[in-house]
Amino acid sequence: MEMEKELFEELTALAANKEYRALKEKLSELNKADAAEFLESLPPKQLPVVFRTLHKEFAAELFSYLAQETQEQLITAITDKEASAIIDELYVDDAVDVLEELPANVVKKLLQHTSPETRRLINQFLNYPESSAGSIMTAEFVHLKKEMTVNQAFERIRQVGLDSETVYTCYVTDANRRLEGVITVRRLFLADLDTLIGDIMDDDVIFVHTYDDREEAARIIGRYDFLSLPVVDQENRLVGIITIDDVMDVIQEENTEDFERMAAMLPSQRPYLKTGVWELAKNRILWLLVLMISAMITGSVLGHYQNLIQFMPILVTFIPMLTGTGGNAGSQSATMVIRGMALDEIEGKDMGRVFWKELRVSLLVGTALALVNCIRLMITYPGEPMVYIIVSVSLVLTVALAKTIGGVLPIVAKLCKADPAIMASPLITTIVDAVSLIVYFSISLKILGV
Amino acid sequence: MEMEKELFEELTALAANKEYRALKEKLSELNKADAAEFLESLPPKQLPVVFRTLHKEFAAELFSYLAQETQEQLITAITDKEASAIIDELYVDDAVDVLEELPANVVKKLLQHTSPETRRLINQFLNYPESSAGSIMTAEFVHLKKEMTVNQAFERIRQVGLDSETVYTCYVTDANRRLEGVITVRRLFLADLDTLIGDIMDDDVIFVHTYDDREEAARIIGRYDFLSLPVVDQENRLVGIITIDDVMDVIQEENTEDFERMAAMLPSQRPYLKTGVWELAKNRILWLLVLMISAMITGSVLGHYQNLIQFMPILVTFIPMLTGTGGNAGSQSATMVIRGMALDEIEGKDMGRVFWKELRVSLLVGTALALVNCIRLMITYPGEPMVYIIVSVSLVLTVALAKTIGGVLPIVAKLCKADPAIMASPLITTIVDAVSLIVYFSISLKILGV
Repeated sequence: MEMEKELFEELTALAANKEYRALKEKLSELNKADAAEFLESLPPKQLPVVFRTLHKEFAAELFSYLAQETQEQLITAITDKEASAIIDELYVDDAVDVLEELPANVVKKLLQHTSPETRRLINQFLNYPESSAGSIMTAEFVHLKKEMTVNQAFERIRQVGLDSETVYTCYVTDANRRLEGVITVRRLFLADLDTLIGDIMDDDVIFVHTYDDREEAARIIGRYDFLSLPVVDQENRLVGIITIDDVMDVIQEENTEDFERMAAMLPSQRPYLKTGVWELAKNRILWLLVLMISAMITGSVLGHYQNLIQFMPILVTFIPMLTGTGGNAGSQSATMVIRGMALDEIEGKDMGRVFWKELRVSLLVGTALALVNCIRLMITYPGEPMVYIIVSVSLVLTVALAKTIGGVLPIVAKLCKADPAIMASPLITTIVDAVSLIVYFSISLKILGV
Repeated sequence: MEMEKELFEELTALAANKEYRALKEKLSELNKADAAEFLESLPPKQLPVVFRTLHKEFAAELFSYLAQETQEQLITAITDKEASAIIDELYVDDAVDVLEELPANVVKKLLQHTSPETRRLINQFLNYPESSAGSIMTAEFVHLKKEMTVNQAFERIRQVGLDSETVYTCYVTDANRRLEGVITVRRLFLADLDTLIGDIMDDDVIFVHTYDDREEAARIIGRYDFLSLPVVDQENRLVGIITIDDVMDVIQEENTEDFERMAAMLPSQRPYLKTGVWELAKNRILWLLVLMISAMITGSVLGHYQNLIQFMPILVTFIPMLTGTGGNAGSQSATMVIRGMALDEIEGKDMGRVFWKELRVSLLVGTALALVNCIRLMITYPGEPMVYIIVSVSLVLTVALAKTIGGVLPIVAKLCKADPAIMASPLITTIVDAVSLIVYFSISLKILGV
């Protein structure tokens, strides 16, 4: 909660007493994000009533700050015409975000009432794949021409500024809407008023295509510290821009997806508390099944060595420690490598370096762990040197295997064009479980000479 | 690699032939991020030579795009005076980032040659804690006064624009440097030239304090879609601003830290490939030790039920499947809740809702898994109804316990003011391992009536 508590309570009291006029005044003075937060707190029945009292432009801007569920709720509660007016006022990218979640027949009805230009744009935008640059771009930006003077450019910014998502970076296009240059308002400030835009614009423009991955757009904006990035179509015509605030949302969404994939879940579309039980279950069961079936292999390894276990039952008690440590060691390495690849710090060609680094780290870590464990064994099981040797050697080998497997498999996944994030803890743990048991029992057999 | 390959090879050839003049020309035409990338590829001996040929301002801007290691290497290779000149040209926040990593005596020497103003600012900035808003703010921004006209404001932006990190949001302060208002250049464009700033500025300014957490600053910028956020000191004097591009770096760093913590590692300061083996080992061993010792508890559970295992050895083969599935189920829930809290979607007061949701999801998922497993058991171990019942009931109970523990523990950690991220897979898995074995053996004893 960003707002002060008293203010929030004052608003709530006004709503409760149905003093809508006073409420409207108060809300209009607020920042849109805060006003949206207050609307979210209203009872579902009152929400459209209060929303309708707001000034049209304020309402539309506030609308894009509401949670998706609230947006859907509102759109269905007000008339189609009112809803269309909001869609018309929204920036195209925000409008598309709302429409994408509504049933097709509702979308069709809503688009009937919007302006032809909005309709055309929205239909075009709705066709871009979900993770494409096109899907997050906006069509409202400042176009300039090479022949304009700086003064004319300022004039143009004044005219269209209010309807553009950003005015601080302007794009220069030719008669065929092909991108020719880019100029920032900061650069305009430093130039004489009668300088030609063509003479001071930067003609080495960095751009993305509509079908490029939105992550690529995010990466470029981050790399060059841009406030916005132009998006061109197949014919290199400028069709939209991506702004830095949308990129921040993309980064968080992509990070959330990675967290989910790395914990063996399918990515979810909505925040946890707003996701239904069935959907949560659906997103989780697939990987749990795959991993459960894989774990049966580990079970059969145990079954295979049943005679050995009967011969020396104490061996069983060290299994959780060995497989657990192996799993944790492996997932440490996998996580670092997956994250490094997501941040473009590690590439396919680094596989050898990663392997060598993990091998050295694992020998250090494994030896330290084995020493601590050995001391503990000497205290708990005095006079059992065979056990000390079996467990210590197994521990060092398990950690070494776990860390090299954990470091290398995500890179292998990437080289096979799969998402490295699936090679995270759960899968690595399952693989390492089986491997470490085989190591453990083989060493036991060898040392015990059974 | 962003640059075209041919261009890169051309630059490399120029460097190899020591044609520094031509190289300088080519580099000056490049974007700083690209030029920095090329410099990174030079042999360490040639790097300072090429760097010295560059124009001072270009060199300083490019400098902030270099990797930290390269920056340190350069600073020590050039003379103190040259280095001080770069420090002088850098934005204070970038300068501080560089200086923080250098030995104290080098910093002292470098600061002797910088301007007194830079020195004062840098010393002040170096004192902010690493994760504070103060540590990521910059001191270069546009101040305005209430009494100025829009025209005077534009004049001022033209004067100081080149040295400010952003000009698009200007801050209005009183004679004591107290923050009075904020105005965007976009708003200035829409006003008449003789309007007073005091009449059109937004006086309801949202700001942070120097000692607030930098994550809080990032959250506010994301929430309100700001391009920059003002930072005030204890006396509410404006001391700096935080820009959105720095916030993007903060978000990625915080996400990386969460990934590392959630995989039971201490956060590392540098990219994976640039971190030494000893440091990697140091960051990983602590948690591995803690978890290894915890896993011994699970081992002693197994030891406790040794007689039961002797009585029915087949029970052992289902252990990996049970503990593995429990661990995975628990880490799915923990991950979603930890991520939800990082994004402020889940708060302490939602504990009950999370518990109830996880309980229902786990019963759905657990039952489905148990069914699949039961069919498999009927095939592999025909005519063993006791085994089917024991394993199925244990599986459902394990998944239910794992998911509720996994969902609730991160919230408990947060309520205890600890980082929820430590309650991720490794710790949850270790806890669930022990719990699921106790459940499994208790059920076995009960059903077998031993």
